[in-house]
Amino acid sequence: MLEIIMSSIKSRQLTHSALASNIDIHDVTHFLLELDALKRVNRRSYVTGANRLENSAEHSWHLAMACWSIAELFELDVNQEKLLKMALVHDLGEIDAGDTFLYADTRGDAHLEERAGIARLQGERGNGISNLNEIWEEQETGSSTETQLLKVVDRLLPFLLNLNTNGKTWIELSVTRSQVSEAHAFIKDSFPSIHDWLAAQIEFATQQGWLIDT
Amino acid sequence: MLEIIMSSIKSRQLTHSALASNIDIHDVTHFLLELDALKRVNRRSYVTGANRLENSAEHSWHLAMACWSIAELFELDVNQEKLLKMALVHDLGEIDAGDTFLYADTRGDAHLEERAGIARLQGERGNGISNLNEIWEEQETGSSTETQLLKVVDRLLPFLLNLNTNGKTWIELSVTRSQVSEAHAFIKDSFPSIHDWLAAQIEFATQQGWLIDT
Repeated sequence: MLEIIMSSIKSRQLTHSALASNIDIHDVTHFLLELDALKRVNRRSYVTGANRLENSAEHSWHLAMACWSIAELFELDVNQEKLLKMALVHDLGEIDAGDTFLYADTRGDAHLEERAGIARLQGERGNGISNLNEIWEEQETGSSTETQLLKVVDRLLPFLLNLNTNGKTWIELSVTRSQVSEAHAFIKDSFPSIHDWLAAQIEFATQQGWLIDT
Repeated sequence: MLEIIMSSIKSRQLTHSALASNIDIHDVTHFLLELDALKRVNRRSYVTGANRLENSAEHSWHLAMACWSIAELFELDVNQEKLLKMALVHDLGEIDAGDTFLYADTRGDAHLEERAGIARLQGERGNGISNLNEIWEEQETGSSTETQLLKVVDRLLPFLLNLNTNGKTWIELSVTRSQVSEAHAFIKDSFPSIHDWLAAQIEFATQQGWLIDT
């Protein structure tokens, strides 16, 4: 029945002919292939139920979905379009810079290379997102509710994956309890109930021997 | 310098205490782990520059980015929040139903199982997206500009990956030129310039022996 309804809807032209005739589809597909590269950037966490590392493209999808769901569940006063866009682009700079582990020594400088990567993508032919730069900058250095929520959930997700893959990442990289506690301390002010949950799970992970007890 | 600015911003509490105290974070994380399952659903296309199949989570990210960029480039009159949300959830039903190849005999019935999968997710504890059902239904059976654009780009992306991995998927599954032409014919009305590009690439892929010439 639905197929019958669907096929009876005449597709109308989406584009304005004059404008469309000036845009080369080879440029459009060039940019789409540039984006495809984010699927090749591996992170340090493992996907649950699969013996492989997570990549930054699927993580970005997960982050967008998680921020959206949490924002609605907690009735947060956010601009959802802005929130979703920030989540979608937050790791795009890693196409050129690569992913930097949360507990790596080079973590503090990672944003410099990522910012350069965003500037490069911004200028690629076929990119229609004229404010890519601005949106990335806001998720990186802004102080809006959207930015703060994003930063909480961006920490929560890899923690959750590490916890649900028997601490595989933590064990492999000799992560300590105090490293994890410190990296999540900022959540105490912005999202106390998530912070409380994290604290209890850090305790559990330490008892399991997944985190080094120092 | 930016770090100094950042650290001087006092995080404020994002949540309303009374509401937050009624939400169990175990429910929140339960739903986030349910979503993680989409990363385990493999599609038939290969990621460019990587010898592995694409999964539905990273594809959903790619689709959201591609729709956003194309909508802005062609100055399409769309609600971007709605467009991004539809892209993010369009394959969520595959967590239960699995991915169905575009040229599979069972393609016509795939939406029934996917719809059931969406209903199941909608009711999971910790899901904050109260209109998940509605958004999925619109991308599946709607006729809005957002839906039409999504359907064009959802065909364009796997085509582009297949083309840029030397037709690997088409060769493995013995796909014919006429199958591909028919599956993309609807784009002629809605997005003529993309349709023209596709037609030329189908010709090229056939000449390369990637598509069977019937």
